[in-house]
Amino acid sequence: MKIKIGLLGLGTVGTGVYKLITSRGGHIRESTGVYPEIKKILVKNLNKPRKVKVEGLLTQNAEEILKDKEIKIVIEAIGGISPAYEYVKEALSSGKHVITANKELMAKHGEDLNETAKKNGVFLKCEASVGGAIPILHQIDRLKITDEIDFVGGIVNGTTNYILTQMSTKGKSYEEALKEAQQLGYAEANPDYDVKGFDSLYKLIILMRKVFNVNVPVNSIRRSGIDGIAREDLDYITEWGYKLKLFAWGKKIENGVFAGVEPVLVEESNILSRVNDVNNAVILKGDSFGEYVFVGKGAGELPTGDAVVADLIDILLNYNIKDNDAAKLLPVRQGSFTDTFYIRLKMHKGDILNLQKILNFFKREEALILESSYENDTFAAVIKLKTNIDVFVEKLNDKKIGELKAIFKVLQEDIDELQLKEFEDLVGVI
Amino acid sequence: MKIKIGLLGLGTVGTGVYKLITSRGGHIRESTGVYPEIKKILVKNLNKPRKVKVEGLLTQNAEEILKDKEIKIVIEAIGGISPAYEYVKEALSSGKHVITANKELMAKHGEDLNETAKKNGVFLKCEASVGGAIPILHQIDRLKITDEIDFVGGIVNGTTNYILTQMSTKGKSYEEALKEAQQLGYAEANPDYDVKGFDSLYKLIILMRKVFNVNVPVNSIRRSGIDGIAREDLDYITEWGYKLKLFAWGKKIENGVFAGVEPVLVEESNILSRVNDVNNAVILKGDSFGEYVFVGKGAGELPTGDAVVADLIDILLNYNIKDNDAAKLLPVRQGSFTDTFYIRLKMHKGDILNLQKILNFFKREEALILESSYENDTFAAVIKLKTNIDVFVEKLNDKKIGELKAIFKVLQEDIDELQLKEFEDLVGVI
Repeated sequence: MKIKIGLLGLGTVGTGVYKLITSRGGHIRESTGVYPEIKKILVKNLNKPRKVKVEGLLTQNAEEILKDKEIKIVIEAIGGISPAYEYVKEALSSGKHVITANKELMAKHGEDLNETAKKNGVFLKCEASVGGAIPILHQIDRLKITDEIDFVGGIVNGTTNYILTQMSTKGKSYEEALKEAQQLGYAEANPDYDVKGFDSLYKLIILMRKVFNVNVPVNSIRRSGIDGIAREDLDYITEWGYKLKLFAWGKKIENGVFAGVEPVLVEESNILSRVNDVNNAVILKGDSFGEYVFVGKGAGELPTGDAVVADLIDILLNYNIKDNDAAKLLPVRQGSFTDTFYIRLKMHKGDILNLQKILNFFKREEALILESSYENDTFAAVIKLKTNIDVFVEKLNDKKIGELKAIFKVLQEDIDELQLKEFEDLVGVI
Repeated sequence: MKIKIGLLGLGTVGTGVYKLITSRGGHIRESTGVYPEIKKILVKNLNKPRKVKVEGLLTQNAEEILKDKEIKIVIEAIGGISPAYEYVKEALSSGKHVITANKELMAKHGEDLNETAKKNGVFLKCEASVGGAIPILHQIDRLKITDEIDFVGGIVNGTTNYILTQMSTKGKSYEEALKEAQQLGYAEANPDYDVKGFDSLYKLIILMRKVFNVNVPVNSIRRSGIDGIAREDLDYITEWGYKLKLFAWGKKIENGVFAGVEPVLVEESNILSRVNDVNNAVILKGDSFGEYVFVGKGAGELPTGDAVVADLIDILLNYNIKDNDAAKLLPVRQGSFTDTFYIRLKMHKGDILNLQKILNFFKREEALILESSYENDTFAAVIKLKTNIDVFVEKLNDKKIGELKAIFKVLQEDIDELQLKEFEDLVGVI
């Protein structure tokens, strides 16, 4: 048996998908009984040189794919919202299965598109949209049956992880590391999508929808990126034996979720401290399996192509774990998963009494100093609080105890022990 | 729709399975359309107090399950070879699907049992036999379609990992750590199965069969356990910034496999150095996805039960990736994946020239010394060889350069770079 596929887009992801489907078509048929054939490929430019042999397959007209009754599966690898949204919607509405690698689309319109897929009795799959090659969504479908999963988190953006790894291991500045990432093709010319945490945020929303059955509006989650991370903060953090990682996390509670995207300090003993360069890691916590960590490449032509083909195989095998709980819209609560923070304060120049003032303040506020440094009018420390971080920072400002330049959370090894506190926290790059 | 299940055994695994199937039966039905019901449970002792309510379900007669036409799925949780082998064989032959957590059975008789399952058109699944809760076998089935996976390895025994973690972080002796593992229920009264590496070996054989489509006889793989690991070796290893891990690994080459089970030194930068206590980690390397590391609990009632139920879900959904390559019997070659080794030599007491003799020998043999210590007539070092480790050790003995007390490999970060050398190596506890 043969099945015809329409491919939208022939960039990095599209090329990887094309390579894998053509080179492993025989394997796919042997394993599933169905031979996948790419019938048409939508591109913007017909004459652009391509890395793959696609003579006779290219078209600039999406309708040639979307209206083709022979095409049963559409793979969307365009990215962005429009026209990807319209194409996916039309494909689903006309009874085609859709596989997409588009995190922004799934984060912003996943609820609507899932609904359309359900109504038309077709699959909408997006394994490649989260964690690159890591087969996490498929796994979650299974795990949800036997487990109450109440935590999902991890390092889900390869570009920022590469930049942070270069900064902490090679002593590079943010600008240098970013430039290198761009030269290597890890970061786009406009890096905002990655470095400001949008990419991580979209992936977190997709993960939380899958894991918790919740729909969360994109703008309800606190997002803090790595742009503007100062070299001097990395110096302190490294010296004290921590790594800095852009961490996306969601914790389900009875009537809502806590969630955030933010740079956090990770202890050397934590496995995340060993997830470097463009690698991703996703952590799940369930009441039967305990804790999983899945580590793999976050991006790349073939890794991402692999995730798309994994979805294709599920469709060909009609692997269909039903999700009878409709996703609910739940409020996102602002909060912290830790009581331990890194802070850096710029002191008023030359005031000899500054250090004593800080120490007195910390003592009064019962803030335990785990690490600290005072030099060149800069005070940096890792502190463990008894009180609310917001209240603490407010008082710090009120009392004019220097100028707060940076504040990051320290990730606790055992997230089950987190003291989730509801408040508007101020953590991030200031 | 309902499906009736027969459960063989009600120990740790059996109890976990029973708990999950009864507590999550509704979820399983919602997700798969089929409600699983445990109809009978085979036990040795009908009157033993149980942690679960099983009134009316227990039997001491296996035939009540194996001959019951209503029972479509048999879950084997007895362990050992006999009578587990006979029961599984009979169940498969009479057209029942079988799920087993029994690594020894699958390692020694997997080929035969897979054949029987195939002939009878039923599933034989053993996710719980490898990596505890880590859903690795299911994943490999999918990944094999798009990838040539040429390496599988990892930490697959929780008991030994717990002992080694305690030894390296708490300064305990092997005997103390073992005793503690026994008190916590991680190790059996007779710990040989774990500490001598049999458990890891069986799991490796199952992994290699799945990943490489090869059948490997149990006794053809070099196996070295952690029993007899000396406190002083751990001291040197820890001081020099390494961790010791029991590593099971297999590398496919064109006409055979290299494979081994042995304690290895792992650098601090390696993610495996952060896999501690009873956790397991499985590494896969494929030509499309790159490298995966899956980390999770290696054992336990619910984690293992979770893996069994994952198999059950695959059966209920008829998830059937066909494996058309029949497993081939391939020779196991002895070899090393590294040129870097830890060694400890006991020198002849009081001979002041000993150190110079060693250093001269190492220089002659072009062995680069990365770390070293000489005290109390003991020389310990991490060395990087240009020559074959066997030849090196032979010469060391010939020249009577002290008495070789311990020798371990140092795991290289990038196993793709391994120089696999064919020889009979001597690595292990001496």
